[in-house]
Amino acid sequence: MGVTVIGLGPGAGADLTGRALAALEACDLIVGYTSYVALLEGMFPEKERRATGMRREVDRCRMAVEEAAQGRAVALVCSGDPGVYGMAALVYEVAQDYPPIDIEVVPGITAACGGAALLGAPLTQDFAVVSLSDLLTPWEVIETRLTLAARADFVLCLYNPASRGRPDHLKRACAVLLRELPAGTPCGYVRHVGRAGEEAHTCTLGELGAVPADMFTTVFVGSRRTQLLDGKLVTPRGYLQRRGRTE
Amino acid sequence: MGVTVIGLGPGAGADLTGRALAALEACDLIVGYTSYVALLEGMFPEKERRATGMRREVDRCRMAVEEAAQGRAVALVCSGDPGVYGMAALVYEVAQDYPPIDIEVVPGITAACGGAALLGAPLTQDFAVVSLSDLLTPWEVIETRLTLAARADFVLCLYNPASRGRPDHLKRACAVLLRELPAGTPCGYVRHVGRAGEEAHTCTLGELGAVPADMFTTVFVGSRRTQLLDGKLVTPRGYLQRRGRTE
Repeated sequence: MGVTVIGLGPGAGADLTGRALAALEACDLIVGYTSYVALLEGMFPEKERRATGMRREVDRCRMAVEEAAQGRAVALVCSGDPGVYGMAALVYEVAQDYPPIDIEVVPGITAACGGAALLGAPLTQDFAVVSLSDLLTPWEVIETRLTLAARADFVLCLYNPASRGRPDHLKRACAVLLRELPAGTPCGYVRHVGRAGEEAHTCTLGELGAVPADMFTTVFVGSRRTQLLDGKLVTPRGYLQRRGRTE
Repeated sequence: MGVTVIGLGPGAGADLTGRALAALEACDLIVGYTSYVALLEGMFPEKERRATGMRREVDRCRMAVEEAAQGRAVALVCSGDPGVYGMAALVYEVAQDYPPIDIEVVPGITAACGGAALLGAPLTQDFAVVSLSDLLTPWEVIETRLTLAARADFVLCLYNPASRGRPDHLKRACAVLLRELPAGTPCGYVRHVGRAGEEAHTCTLGELGAVPADMFTTVFVGSRRTQLLDGKLVTPRGYLQRRGRTE
Protein backbone atom coordinates (compact mmCIF):
# COMPACT_ATOMS: atom_id res chain seq x y z
CA MET A 1 0.00 0.00 0.00
CA GLY A 2 1.13 3.55 -0.54
CA VAL A 3 0.92 6.48 -2.94
CA THR A 4 1.76 6.07 -6.61
CA VAL A 5 2.20 9.48 -8.24
CA ILE A 6 1.23 8.87 -11.84
CA GLY A 7 1.98 10.94 -14.93
CA LEU A 8 -0.91 10.77 -17.40
CA GLY A 9 1.08 12.35 -20.24
CA PRO A 10 -0.31 15.30 -22.19
CA GLY A 11 -3.89 14.06 -22.39
CA ALA A 12 -4.16 10.67 -20.66
CA GLY A 13 -4.73 9.19 -24.11
CA ALA A 14 -2.37 7.46 -26.52
CA ASP A 15 0.65 8.82 -24.60
CA LEU A 16 -0.24 6.88 -21.42
CA THR A 17 2.44 4.31 -20.59
CA GLY A 18 1.83 0.68 -19.72
CA ARG A 19 3.26 1.38 -16.25
CA ALA A 20 0.73 4.18 -15.67
CA LEU A 21 -2.20 2.02 -16.81
CA ALA A 22 -1.08 -0.87 -14.57
CA ALA A 23 -0.73 1.47 -11.58
CA LEU A 24 -4.23 2.87 -12.15
CA GLU A 25 -5.59 -0.67 -12.51
CA ALA A 26 -3.96 -1.67 -9.20
CA CYS A 27 -5.12 1.29 -7.09
CA ASP A 28 -8.09 1.53 -4.71
CA LEU A 29 -8.54 5.28 -5.00
CA ILE A 30 -7.73 7.92 -7.65
CA VAL A 31 -6.90 11.40 -6.29
CA GLY A 32 -6.10 14.49 -8.36
CA TYR A 33 -6.84 17.99 -9.57
CA THR A 34 -10.39 18.10 -10.97
CA SER A 35 -9.45 18.53 -14.63
CA TYR A 36 -6.76 15.82 -14.46
CA VAL A 37 -9.17 13.30 -12.93
CA ALA A 38 -11.57 14.33 -15.71
CA LEU A 39 -8.97 13.22 -18.27
CA LEU A 40 -9.69 9.66 -17.06
CA GLU A 41 -13.40 10.02 -18.02
CA GLY A 42 -14.72 6.57 -18.86
CA MET A 43 -11.53 4.77 -17.75
CA PHE A 44 -11.56 2.60 -14.60
CA PRO A 45 -15.18 3.59 -13.80
CA GLU A 46 -15.17 1.19 -10.82
CA LYS A 47 -12.46 3.13 -8.99
CA GLU A 48 -13.31 5.61 -6.25
CA ARG A 49 -12.27 9.17 -7.22
CA ARG A 50 -11.48 12.27 -5.14
CA ALA A 51 -10.98 15.42 -7.18
CA THR A 52 -9.89 18.71 -5.61
CA GLY A 53 -9.72 22.17 -7.17
CA MET A 54 -6.91 24.59 -7.94
CA ARG A 55 -4.74 25.91 -5.08
CA ARG A 56 -5.46 22.73 -3.09
CA GLU A 57 -2.15 21.01 -3.85
CA VAL A 58 -1.11 20.53 -0.23
CA ASP A 59 -4.54 19.25 0.87
CA ARG A 60 -4.58 16.89 -2.12
CA CYS A 61 -1.22 15.37 -1.23
CA ARG A 62 -2.12 15.12 2.47
CA MET A 63 -5.35 13.32 1.56
CA ALA A 64 -3.41 10.87 -0.62
CA VAL A 65 -0.80 10.20 2.08
CA GLU A 66 -3.45 9.85 4.82
CA GLU A 67 -5.45 7.35 2.77
CA ALA A 68 -2.25 5.40 2.07
CA ALA A 69 -1.42 5.45 5.80
CA GLN A 70 -4.81 3.80 6.31
CA GLY A 71 -3.61 0.95 4.11
CA ARG A 72 -5.13 1.93 0.77
CA ALA A 73 -3.39 1.92 -2.60
CA VAL A 74 -3.72 5.54 -3.75
CA ALA A 75 -3.08 6.80 -7.28
CA LEU A 76 -2.32 10.54 -7.30
CA VAL A 77 -2.65 11.59 -10.94
CA CYS A 78 -0.95 14.53 -12.66
CA SER A 79 -1.02 15.54 -16.32
CA GLY A 80 2.31 15.26 -18.10
CA ASP A 81 5.07 14.06 -15.78
CA PRO A 82 4.51 14.33 -12.00
CA GLY A 83 8.21 15.11 -11.56
CA VAL A 84 8.13 18.21 -13.80
CA TYR A 85 6.17 20.96 -11.97
CA GLY A 86 3.92 18.16 -10.67
CA MET A 87 3.02 16.74 -7.28
CA ALA A 88 5.90 14.25 -6.86
CA ALA A 89 8.10 16.46 -4.65
CA LEU A 90 5.18 17.66 -2.53
CA VAL A 91 4.12 14.07 -1.75
CA TYR A 92 7.62 13.30 -0.44
CA GLU A 93 7.55 16.51 1.63
CA VAL A 94 4.07 15.94 3.10
CA ALA A 95 4.88 12.29 3.86
CA GLN A 96 7.48 13.50 6.38
CA ASP A 97 4.58 14.29 8.76
CA TYR A 98 3.16 10.74 8.73
CA PRO A 99 4.24 7.17 9.49
CA PRO A 100 6.37 5.74 6.65
CA ILE A 101 4.43 4.79 3.49
CA ASP A 102 5.60 3.52 0.11
CA ILE A 103 5.86 6.26 -2.52
CA GLU A 104 6.44 5.51 -6.19
CA VAL A 105 6.62 7.98 -9.07
CA VAL A 106 5.46 6.76 -12.49
CA PRO A 107 6.89 9.09 -15.15
CA GLY A 108 4.75 10.45 -17.97
CA ILE A 109 5.36 12.33 -21.22
CA THR A 110 5.92 15.94 -20.11
CA ALA A 111 4.76 18.91 -22.24
CA ALA A 112 8.38 19.65 -23.26
CA CYS A 113 8.63 16.27 -25.02
CA GLY A 114 5.02 16.08 -26.22
CA GLY A 115 5.09 19.64 -27.54
CA ALA A 116 8.50 19.26 -29.16
CA ALA A 117 7.26 16.20 -31.08
CA LEU A 118 4.36 18.23 -32.50
CA LEU A 119 6.58 21.15 -33.54
CA GLY A 120 9.39 19.02 -35.02
CA ALA A 121 12.59 18.48 -33.04
CA PRO A 122 13.56 21.65 -31.14
CA LEU A 123 15.11 19.89 -28.10
CA THR A 124 17.81 17.72 -29.67
CA GLN A 125 20.46 20.06 -28.27
CA ASP A 126 20.99 21.11 -24.63
CA PHE A 127 17.87 22.82 -23.29
CA ALA A 128 16.44 24.51 -20.20
CA VAL A 129 12.90 24.29 -18.83
CA VAL A 130 11.51 27.37 -17.05
CA SER A 131 8.08 28.07 -15.58
CA LEU A 132 6.89 31.67 -16.07
CA SER A 133 4.63 31.44 -13.02
CA ASP A 134 5.86 33.71 -10.23
CA LEU A 135 3.46 32.29 -7.64
CA LEU A 136 6.23 30.10 -6.18
CA THR A 137 9.37 31.63 -7.75
CA PRO A 138 10.15 35.39 -7.61
CA TRP A 139 9.96 37.05 -11.05
CA GLU A 140 13.53 38.38 -10.67
CA VAL A 141 14.76 34.77 -10.39
CA ILE A 142 12.79 33.83 -13.51
CA GLU A 143 14.32 36.78 -15.41
CA THR A 144 17.83 35.76 -14.33
CA ARG A 145 17.25 32.18 -15.47
CA LEU A 146 15.93 33.33 -18.86
CA THR A 147 18.90 35.67 -19.34
CA LEU A 148 21.58 33.14 -18.37
CA ALA A 149 19.89 30.32 -20.35
CA ALA A 150 19.86 32.52 -23.46
CA ARG A 151 23.53 33.47 -22.94
CA ALA A 152 24.38 29.76 -22.58
CA ASP A 153 22.60 29.11 -25.93
CA PHE A 154 20.15 26.64 -24.43
CA VAL A 155 16.94 25.95 -26.31
CA LEU A 156 14.22 27.16 -23.91
CA CYS A 157 10.96 25.41 -23.07
CA LEU A 158 8.56 27.66 -21.12
CA TYR A 159 5.77 26.22 -18.95
CA ASN A 160 2.88 28.29 -17.53
CA PRO A 161 3.56 31.15 -20.00
CA ALA A 162 0.41 33.01 -18.93
CA SER A 163 -2.82 32.74 -16.97
CA ARG A 164 -5.77 34.98 -16.19
CA GLY A 165 -3.85 36.38 -13.22
CA ARG A 166 -0.60 36.82 -15.21
CA PRO A 167 -1.71 37.68 -18.77
CA ASP A 168 1.54 39.47 -19.69
CA HIS A 169 4.23 37.08 -18.41
CA LEU A 170 5.14 35.70 -21.85
CA LYS A 171 5.42 39.25 -23.22
CA ARG A 172 7.68 40.21 -20.28
CA ALA A 173 9.81 37.09 -20.78
CA CYS A 174 10.21 37.89 -24.49
CA ALA A 175 11.39 41.41 -23.62
CA VAL A 176 14.09 39.85 -21.41
CA LEU A 177 15.11 37.33 -24.07
CA LEU A 178 15.23 39.97 -26.83
CA ARG A 179 18.10 41.62 -24.96
CA GLU A 180 20.11 38.42 -25.56
CA LEU A 181 18.72 36.86 -28.74
CA PRO A 182 17.90 38.09 -32.30
CA ALA A 183 14.24 38.99 -32.95
CA GLY A 184 14.36 36.44 -35.80
CA THR A 185 15.09 33.51 -33.45
CA PRO A 186 12.74 30.65 -34.48
CA CYS A 187 10.15 29.85 -31.80
CA GLY A 188 7.06 27.69 -31.47
CA TYR A 189 4.12 27.11 -29.18
CA VAL A 190 1.61 24.32 -28.66
CA ARG A 191 -1.80 24.30 -26.99
CA HIS A 192 -3.92 21.44 -25.59
CA VAL A 193 -1.31 18.79 -26.49
CA GLY A 194 -2.97 15.38 -26.69
CA ARG A 195 -6.41 16.86 -26.08
CA ALA A 196 -9.34 18.23 -28.09
CA GLY A 197 -8.23 21.42 -29.86
CA GLU A 198 -4.55 20.43 -30.05
CA GLU A 199 -2.59 23.03 -32.05
CA ALA A 200 1.05 23.80 -32.87
CA HIS A 201 2.44 27.02 -34.38
CA THR A 202 5.83 28.52 -35.18
CA CYS A 203 6.82 32.20 -35.10
CA THR A 204 9.82 34.43 -34.40
CA LEU A 205 10.95 35.66 -30.97
CA GLY A 206 9.92 39.13 -32.13
CA GLU A 207 6.35 37.86 -32.67
CA LEU A 208 6.17 35.50 -29.67
CA GLY A 209 5.18 38.10 -27.08
CA ALA A 210 1.92 38.79 -28.90
CA VAL A 211 0.72 35.20 -29.47
CA PRO A 212 -2.29 33.94 -27.49
CA ALA A 213 -0.93 31.97 -24.50
CA ASP A 214 -2.68 30.45 -21.51
CA MET A 215 -2.24 27.72 -18.90
CA PHE A 216 -2.64 25.06 -21.60
CA THR A 217 0.19 26.49 -23.73
CA THR A 218 3.83 25.39 -23.82
CA VAL A 219 6.35 27.66 -25.55
CA PHE A 220 9.69 26.89 -27.23
CA VAL A 221 12.45 29.43 -27.96
CA GLY A 222 15.20 28.26 -30.29
CA SER A 223 18.94 28.43 -29.72
CA ARG A 224 21.35 29.93 -32.26
CA ARG A 225 21.30 26.53 -33.99
CA THR A 226 17.52 26.17 -34.26
CA GLN A 227 15.98 26.53 -37.73
CA LEU A 228 12.69 26.12 -39.57
CA LEU A 229 12.74 23.15 -42.00
CA ASP A 230 9.54 22.86 -44.07
CA GLY A 231 7.65 24.57 -41.27
CA LYS A 232 9.10 22.32 -38.55
CA LEU A 233 11.13 23.73 -35.63
CA VAL A 234 14.42 21.77 -35.68
CA THR A 235 17.64 22.11 -33.67
CA PRO A 236 20.29 20.05 -35.51
CA ARG A 237 22.35 17.88 -33.15
CA GLY A 238 25.35 18.36 -35.45
CA TYR A 239 25.76 14.97 -37.17
CA LEU A 240 25.53 16.38 -40.69
CA GLN A 241 27.62 19.41 -39.76
CA ARG A 242 30.44 17.11 -38.56
CA ARG A 243 30.27 14.01 -40.74
CA GLY A 244 32.21 11.10 -39.31
CA ARG A 245 31.96 12.35 -35.74
CA THR A 246 28.91 11.07 -33.88
CA GLU A 247 27.67 10.48 -30.36
CA MET B 1 3.67 6.21 -45.85
CA GLY B 2 6.59 7.87 -44.16
CA VAL B 3 8.96 7.75 -41.21
CA THR B 4 7.66 7.57 -37.64
CA VAL B 5 10.47 8.36 -35.20
CA ILE B 6 9.51 6.44 -32.08
CA GLY B 7 10.69 6.88 -28.50
CA LEU B 8 10.87 3.53 -26.71
CA GLY B 9 11.29 5.08 -23.27
CA PRO B 10 14.08 3.96 -20.95
CA GLY B 11 13.87 0.26 -21.73
CA ALA B 12 11.05 -0.35 -24.23
CA GLY B 13 9.18 -2.06 -21.40
CA ALA B 14 6.45 -0.78 -19.07
CA ASP B 15 7.26 2.83 -20.02
CA LEU B 16 6.26 2.31 -23.67
CA THR B 17 3.25 4.46 -24.60
CA GLY B 18 0.14 3.27 -26.41
CA ARG B 19 1.06 5.61 -29.28
CA ALA B 20 4.51 4.00 -29.65
CA LEU B 21 3.06 0.47 -29.61
CA ALA B 22 0.42 1.42 -32.23
CA ALA B 23 3.09 2.99 -34.46
CA LEU B 24 5.27 -0.14 -34.23
CA GLU B 25 2.23 -2.31 -35.00
CA ALA B 26 1.43 -0.20 -38.08
CA CYS B 27 4.93 -0.13 -39.59
CA ASP B 28 6.41 -2.30 -42.37
CA LEU B 29 10.03 -1.93 -41.26
CA ILE B 30 11.81 -1.22 -37.96
CA VAL B 31 15.11 0.68 -38.26
CA GLY B 32 17.44 1.60 -35.40
CA TYR B 33 20.73 1.43 -33.57
CA THR B 34 21.53 -2.23 -32.86
CA SER B 35 21.01 -2.12 -29.09
CA TYR B 36 17.75 -0.16 -29.42
CA VAL B 37 16.31 -2.64 -31.91
CA ALA B 38 17.43 -5.35 -29.46
CA LEU B 39 15.19 -3.76 -26.80
CA LEU B 40 12.26 -4.96 -28.94
CA GLU B 41 13.43 -8.59 -28.66
CA GLY B 42 10.37 -10.82 -28.91
CA MET B 43 8.01 -7.94 -29.79
CA PHE B 44 6.55 -7.69 -33.31
CA PRO B 45 8.62 -10.70 -34.52
CA GLU B 46 6.89 -10.51 -37.92
CA LYS B 47 8.34 -7.08 -38.69
CA GLU B 48 11.40 -6.65 -40.88
CA ARG B 49 14.29 -5.12 -38.89
CA ARG B 50 17.39 -3.19 -40.01
CA ALA B 51 19.85 -2.49 -37.22
CA THR B 52 22.95 -0.35 -37.73
CA GLY B 53 25.88 0.21 -35.38
CA MET B 54 27.26 3.25 -33.55
CA ARG B 55 28.47 6.26 -35.57
CA ARG B 56 26.03 5.34 -38.38
CA GLU B 57 23.35 7.89 -37.41
CA VAL B 58 23.28 9.65 -40.79
CA ASP B 59 23.20 6.37 -42.77
CA ARG B 60 20.44 5.07 -40.50
CA CYS B 61 18.26 8.14 -41.08
CA ARG B 62 18.94 8.12 -44.85
CA MET B 63 17.95 4.46 -44.98
CA ALA B 64 14.71 5.20 -43.14
CA VAL B 65 13.87 8.16 -45.40
CA GLU B 66 14.76 6.24 -48.60
CA GLU B 67 12.55 3.29 -47.61
CA ALA B 68 9.72 5.71 -46.83
CA ALA B 69 10.22 7.42 -50.19
CA GLN B 70 9.66 3.95 -51.73
CA GLY B 71 6.25 3.93 -50.08
CA ARG B 72 6.99 1.91 -46.96
CA ALA B 73 5.89 2.74 -43.40
CA VAL B 74 9.18 2.97 -41.50
CA ALA B 75 9.55 2.99 -37.71
CA LEU B 76 12.87 4.56 -36.65
CA VAL B 77 13.29 3.61 -33.00
CA CYS B 78 15.29 5.46 -30.33
CA SER B 79 15.59 4.75 -26.63
CA GLY B 80 14.09 7.40 -24.36
CA ASP B 81 12.62 10.30 -26.37
CA PRO B 82 13.74 10.72 -30.02
CA GLY B 83 13.55 14.51 -29.58
CA VAL B 84 16.09 14.60 -26.70
CA TYR B 85 19.55 13.81 -28.15
CA GLY B 86 17.75 11.36 -30.47
CA MET B 87 17.29 11.01 -34.22
CA ALA B 88 14.23 13.27 -34.67
CA ALA B 89 16.11 16.36 -35.85
CA LEU B 90 18.43 14.38 -38.14
CA VAL B 91 15.47 12.75 -39.92
CA TYR B 92 14.04 16.20 -40.72
CA GLU B 93 17.48 17.36 -41.92
CA VAL B 94 18.15 14.30 -44.09
CA ALA B 95 14.62 14.41 -45.57
CA GLN B 96 15.52 17.75 -47.19
CA ASP B 97 17.49 15.76 -49.81
CA TYR B 98 14.51 13.62 -50.89
CA PRO B 99 10.99 14.01 -52.27
CA PRO B 100 8.54 15.02 -49.51
CA ILE B 101 7.59 12.23 -47.08
CA ASP B 102 5.45 12.22 -43.94
CA ILE B 103 7.48 12.46 -40.74
CA GLU B 104 5.93 11.96 -37.30
CA VAL B 105 7.70 12.01 -33.94
CA VAL B 106 6.24 9.80 -31.18
CA PRO B 107 7.56 11.04 -27.83
CA GLY B 108 8.91 8.66 -25.20
CA ILE B 109 9.92 8.89 -21.55
CA THR B 110 13.36 10.49 -21.63
CA ALA B 111 16.09 9.56 -19.11
CA ALA B 112 15.62 12.90 -17.29
CA CYS B 113 12.04 11.95 -16.38
CA GLY B 114 12.64 8.21 -15.94
CA GLY B 115 15.73 8.76 -13.83
CA ALA B 116 14.14 11.52 -11.74
CA ALA B 117 11.24 9.20 -10.86
CA LEU B 118 13.69 6.57 -9.56
CA LEU B 119 15.64 9.08 -7.46
CA GLY B 120 12.59 10.89 -6.03
CA ALA B 121 11.57 14.26 -7.48
CA PRO B 122 14.66 16.35 -8.34
CA LEU B 123 13.13 18.14 -11.38
CA THR B 124 10.05 19.83 -9.90
CA GLN B 125 11.81 23.19 -10.18
CA ASP B 126 13.31 24.81 -13.32
CA PHE B 127 16.03 22.57 -14.77
CA ALA B 128 18.59 22.34 -17.57
CA VAL B 129 19.60 19.27 -19.59
CA VAL B 130 23.21 19.09 -20.80
CA SER B 131 25.08 16.34 -22.66
CA LEU B 132 28.70 15.93 -21.56
CA SER B 133 29.67 14.46 -24.92
CA ASP B 134 31.99 16.80 -26.82
CA LEU B 135 31.80 14.85 -30.07
CA LEU B 136 29.23 17.29 -31.48
CA THR B 137 29.54 20.24 -29.05
CA PRO B 138 32.89 21.86 -28.14
CA TRP B 139 33.89 21.23 -24.50
CA GLU B 140 34.23 24.99 -23.90
CA VAL B 141 30.54 25.41 -24.80
CA ILE B 142 29.62 22.59 -22.41
CA GLU B 143 31.64 24.24 -19.61
CA THR B 144 29.94 27.58 -20.24
CA ARG B 145 26.49 25.96 -20.10
CA LEU B 146 27.32 24.16 -16.84
CA THR B 147 28.64 27.37 -15.29
CA LEU B 148 25.68 29.56 -16.31
CA ALA B 149 23.12 26.87 -15.41
CA ALA B 150 24.65 26.59 -11.92
CA ARG B 151 24.64 30.40 -11.52
CA ALA B 152 20.97 30.46 -12.57
CA ASP B 153 20.23 27.83 -9.87
CA PHE B 154 18.83 25.31 -12.36
CA VAL B 155 18.69 21.68 -11.30
CA LEU B 156 21.01 19.96 -13.81
CA CYS B 157 20.40 16.68 -15.62
CA LEU B 158 23.54 15.40 -17.39
CA TYR B 159 23.33 12.94 -20.31
CA ASN B 160 26.33 11.02 -21.70
CA PRO B 161 28.40 11.71 -18.55
CA ALA B 162 31.22 9.41 -19.69
CA SER B 163 32.19 6.77 -22.23
CA ARG B 164 35.27 4.67 -23.02
CA GLY B 165 36.60 7.51 -25.13
CA ARG B 166 35.73 10.19 -22.52
CA PRO B 167 36.22 8.50 -19.13
CA ASP B 168 36.86 11.76 -17.24
CA HIS B 169 34.10 14.06 -18.54
CA LEU B 170 31.93 13.78 -15.42
CA LYS B 171 34.95 14.52 -13.21
CA ARG B 172 35.79 17.56 -15.36
CA ALA B 173 32.17 18.75 -15.24
CA CYS B 174 32.13 18.44 -11.45
CA ALA B 175 35.30 20.55 -11.22
CA VAL B 176 33.50 23.28 -13.19
CA LEU B 177 30.35 23.03 -11.07
CA LEU B 178 32.29 23.08 -7.78
CA ARG B 179 33.43 26.61 -8.65
CA GLU B 180 29.74 27.65 -8.47
CA LEU B 181 28.06 25.23 -6.06
CA PRO B 182 28.79 23.89 -2.54
CA ALA B 183 30.51 20.47 -2.35
CA GLY B 184 27.57 19.31 -0.23
CA THR B 185 25.03 19.91 -3.04
CA PRO B 186 22.76 16.82 -3.18
CA CYS B 187 23.21 14.83 -6.39
CA GLY B 188 22.06 11.50 -7.81
CA TYR B 189 22.74 9.14 -10.66
CA VAL B 190 20.89 6.27 -12.29
CA ARG B 191 22.10 3.43 -14.53
CA HIS B 192 20.24 1.11 -16.92
CA VAL B 193 16.86 2.78 -16.22
CA GLY B 194 14.04 0.39 -17.14
CA ARG B 195 16.50 -2.38 -18.03
CA ALA B 196 18.21 -5.31 -16.31
CA GLY B 197 20.58 -3.99 -13.65
CA GLU B 198 18.61 -0.77 -13.02
CA GLU B 199 20.17 1.18 -10.13
CA ALA B 200 19.76 4.61 -8.50
CA HIS B 201 22.15 6.29 -6.05
CA THR B 202 22.50 9.64 -4.29
CA CYS B 203 25.72 11.42 -3.31
CA THR B 204 27.14 14.93 -2.88
CA LEU B 205 28.63 17.09 -5.65
CA GLY B 206 31.98 16.61 -3.92
CA GLU B 207 31.63 12.83 -4.36
CA LEU B 208 30.01 12.86 -7.82
CA GLY B 209 33.23 13.13 -9.85
CA ALA B 210 34.41 9.76 -8.54
CA VAL B 211 31.25 7.69 -9.09
CA PRO B 212 31.24 5.02 -11.83
CA ALA B 213 29.56 6.58 -14.89
CA ASP B 214 29.15 5.30 -18.44
CA MET B 215 26.93 5.73 -21.51
CA PHE B 216 24.04 4.11 -19.62
CA THR B 217 24.23 6.58 -16.73
CA THR B 218 22.18 9.77 -16.23
CA VAL B 219 23.32 12.25 -13.59
CA PHE B 220 21.38 14.83 -11.55
CA VAL B 221 22.90 17.83 -9.74
CA GLY B 222 20.61 19.59 -7.29
CA SER B 223 19.86 23.30 -7.10
CA ARG B 224 20.15 25.32 -3.88
CA ARG B 225 16.63 24.09 -3.06
CA THR B 226 17.26 20.36 -3.55
CA GLN B 227 17.35 18.16 -0.45
CA LEU B 228 17.56 14.51 0.58
CA LEU B 229 14.30 13.31 2.21
CA ASP B 230 14.51 9.72 3.53
CA GLY B 231 17.15 8.99 0.90
CA LYS B 232 15.15 10.52 -1.96
CA LEU B 233 16.45 13.46 -4.03
CA VAL B 234 13.71 16.10 -3.83
CA THR B 235 13.52 19.71 -5.07
CA PRO B 236 10.51 21.30 -3.32
CA ARG B 237 8.35 23.32 -5.69
CA GLY B 238 7.55 25.73 -2.85
CA TYR B 239 3.93 24.92 -1.96
CA LEU B 240 4.67 24.19 1.71
CA GLN B 241 7.12 27.08 1.91
CA ARG B 242 4.39 29.49 0.72
CA ARG B 243 1.10 28.11 2.01
CA GLY B 244 -1.90 29.62 0.25
CA ARG B 245 0.07 30.56 -2.86
CA THR B 246 0.05 27.87 -5.56
CA GLU B 247 0.48 27.47 -9.31
